[in-house]
Amino acid sequence: MTGKHSEGGVCSAKGFSANGLNCGINPDKNKNDLCMVYSDVLCNTAAVYTQNKVKGAPIIVTKRNLERSKGKSQAIIANSKNANTANADGEQKAVKMCELTAKVLGIRPEQVIVASTGVIGEVLPIEPIEKSMRELADGLSYSGNAKAVNAIMTTDTVPKETAIQFEIDGKVCTLGGMAKGSGMIHPNMATTLNFLTTDVAITSELLQKALSETVKTTYNCLTVDGDTSTNDMISIMANGMAGNKRIECEDDERYVIFKTVLHDVLEELTKMLAKDGEGATKMIECTCSGAKDLDTAIIVAKSVVRSPLVKSGIFGSDANWGRILCAIGYAEADFDINKVDVDVSSSAGEIAACRNGLIVAFSEEKAKEVLLQDEIYIHIHLNAGDVSAKAWGCDLTYDYVKINGDYRS
Amino acid sequence: MTGKHSEGGVCSAKGFSANGLNCGINPDKNKNDLCMVYSDVLCNTAAVYTQNKVKGAPIIVTKRNLERSKGKSQAIIANSKNANTANADGEQKAVKMCELTAKVLGIRPEQVIVASTGVIGEVLPIEPIEKSMRELADGLSYSGNAKAVNAIMTTDTVPKETAIQFEIDGKVCTLGGMAKGSGMIHPNMATTLNFLTTDVAITSELLQKALSETVKTTYNCLTVDGDTSTNDMISIMANGMAGNKRIECEDDERYVIFKTVLHDVLEELTKMLAKDGEGATKMIECTCSGAKDLDTAIIVAKSVVRSPLVKSGIFGSDANWGRILCAIGYAEADFDINKVDVDVSSSAGEIAACRNGLIVAFSEEKAKEVLLQDEIYIHIHLNAGDVSAKAWGCDLTYDYVKINGDYRS
Repeated sequence: MTGKHSEGGVCSAKGFSANGLNCGINPDKNKNDLCMVYSDVLCNTAAVYTQNKVKGAPIIVTKRNLERSKGKSQAIIANSKNANTANADGEQKAVKMCELTAKVLGIRPEQVIVASTGVIGEVLPIEPIEKSMRELADGLSYSGNAKAVNAIMTTDTVPKETAIQFEIDGKVCTLGGMAKGSGMIHPNMATTLNFLTTDVAITSELLQKALSETVKTTYNCLTVDGDTSTNDMISIMANGMAGNKRIECEDDERYVIFKTVLHDVLEELTKMLAKDGEGATKMIECTCSGAKDLDTAIIVAKSVVRSPLVKSGIFGSDANWGRILCAIGYAEADFDINKVDVDVSSSAGEIAACRNGLIVAFSEEKAKEVLLQDEIYIHIHLNAGDVSAKAWGCDLTYDYVKINGDYRS
Repeated sequence: MTGKHSEGGVCSAKGFSANGLNCGINPDKNKNDLCMVYSDVLCNTAAVYTQNKVKGAPIIVTKRNLERSKGKSQAIIANSKNANTANADGEQKAVKMCELTAKVLGIRPEQVIVASTGVIGEVLPIEPIEKSMRELADGLSYSGNAKAVNAIMTTDTVPKETAIQFEIDGKVCTLGGMAKGSGMIHPNMATTLNFLTTDVAITSELLQKALSETVKTTYNCLTVDGDTSTNDMISIMANGMAGNKRIECEDDERYVIFKTVLHDVLEELTKMLAKDGEGATKMIECTCSGAKDLDTAIIVAKSVVRSPLVKSGIFGSDANWGRILCAIGYAEADFDINKVDVDVSSSAGEIAACRNGLIVAFSEEKAKEVLLQDEIYIHIHLNAGDVSAKAWGCDLTYDYVKINGDYRS
């Protein structure tokens, strides 16, 4: 890994402060439901959004803001418990959140990223947000990340944040972020609610390029239940406060370093999201290697982690290799099934499941040992090239059904 | 409906006999695991198969047989408990099953349709099949359909069979069938294990055309868990014993009548399969109307019935309309989300969920009443044309997870 881990999540990079509180949208006073992230200086900003035709109002407003500000932002305002989506007054409410934020921070509304997560189709109450805005801004702190990440959690059981410290031009740089997402995760061209911050100096264009490309092999390869959310969004703010010479060119090795760190941060957050999928007891990571191209590798890997039969089999620690083979077989990609090998591993060992498209004889006892761990690795070898990709997901459990059988309560 | 219901399933049409027994593959002696269907005379035959790259050996052999026999068959041999798939000796075993069947019936091996359903990757024991072949053939009866359908059931909780009687050229004709399928159902260009029989006189080409086209809007619109099986197959045998003048031309109104009956039989079997999805407590039928073309209507309808969040919400009788909207939104089809209306109904009434892409206010009490029934109908109106299609599925329950957490026991 390039660099080393650092504490602080979204506040790890220089000049970023955050806060979170319960403003009253969530009746549980011990759970934050509103957060703010602020940069001491204006940031170059990039974002990718859900491709679901149903777009949460916050997505529409954030997108518009970034267009108007030409890729600049200085703050994030986000709430949970209510997705502000599919409501007639959605945009008006999202715009209001930006105006309130801008006013209390002394910045422009179009320099605000706005996000909401939670139930779709219930009107967002703006009054609680308005009432808490002053307190929220006054409480901004360079160590406020924990309160912020708590505010964006919904069915998440653990907060997801990380940060990596690295060097560019002899300057210490940091890239950190926080994420939320548990159910309704099947990113397609965009992802869950994720906010990244960095103090690296880099142009908006390169920031967008790096983000869009890195998302393809990380967040876009995450699937908990196959459902692409209406509110998926990932944004990255870069404020340049690390003091490096601004990264302006793709061919620059410093861009390569930056993109590598971005990939590592995104992959970490992705695995955290997979591990905390609704009801999950096990994370599943599927690597497809030996593919002729990246799209093939991604499609095959995702097909396996998405399969309800594979997921429930893993929940039951059942060595039903045929289901893995079946999911590989219906992946919409071009390859020869008769060359496919599959192995399954975990911290308890590794076991061969398939050779040349046929299930091999195996020890049930060994298989059980392997599958009883809480991180299961499926390795698919297409033997058709040299490209590989990973996809992440989790097992399908009774708790998933329980959680989603009555989500709105 | 054209025609009226008739008893007898696969034996309802003239000249078809059947039998089923337990040959020992299934240790439960009270459950049949081997069946045979036989026509007194040679049949024009058509079939469609799974598009999964992993094809069960029986699929490969049946396909080859029908090519060699130029679309003629006279018997079906099928077993359950073992899918004879992904094993090195699969084809050899499937070929052997055809030879044994042909020998005991006095027909040619390539005139046999062979099928297997059950666990993938376990070697098929041929000795029990061989030992029971004589008894199976000797016990063929014109009322043997119940024994046969019992033999193809795996996780099915009820047998699925139906038959429709109708008239062509003043002759009484019948089209009947039996089906099995509970989990691993997400037909793509092919379907579950289904055997149709008819006494209509029709050419092989028209039979194939009718089947391929009708499957598109029935079986291919069925999804229990999104997994396309390795062994999906639907075959139809037509022996001409009704005595009608052979149907040879697409423009013939008699072809239209035949195709309509075929559609009705397939739709009935499809709904039975949806209702008996693994762990299902409720059948879900989603109609997408007002689409600009058939593919759009199908894609949207299937997207909704496939969604784990929609399925689990319905299990919990939870009026989470946002999930339906979300599933519509990520369907890979082209339409304006701002024109979409959604209603949900059941025998308990109807309720509006969405108008012009926005969730509407609704009575939670009324919604609960509607959702507590065991057949839920979701109506999507795209308001973009006049084409419609239906898709079928079921709720996602604890039992699905339980059944699939340990399938192989």
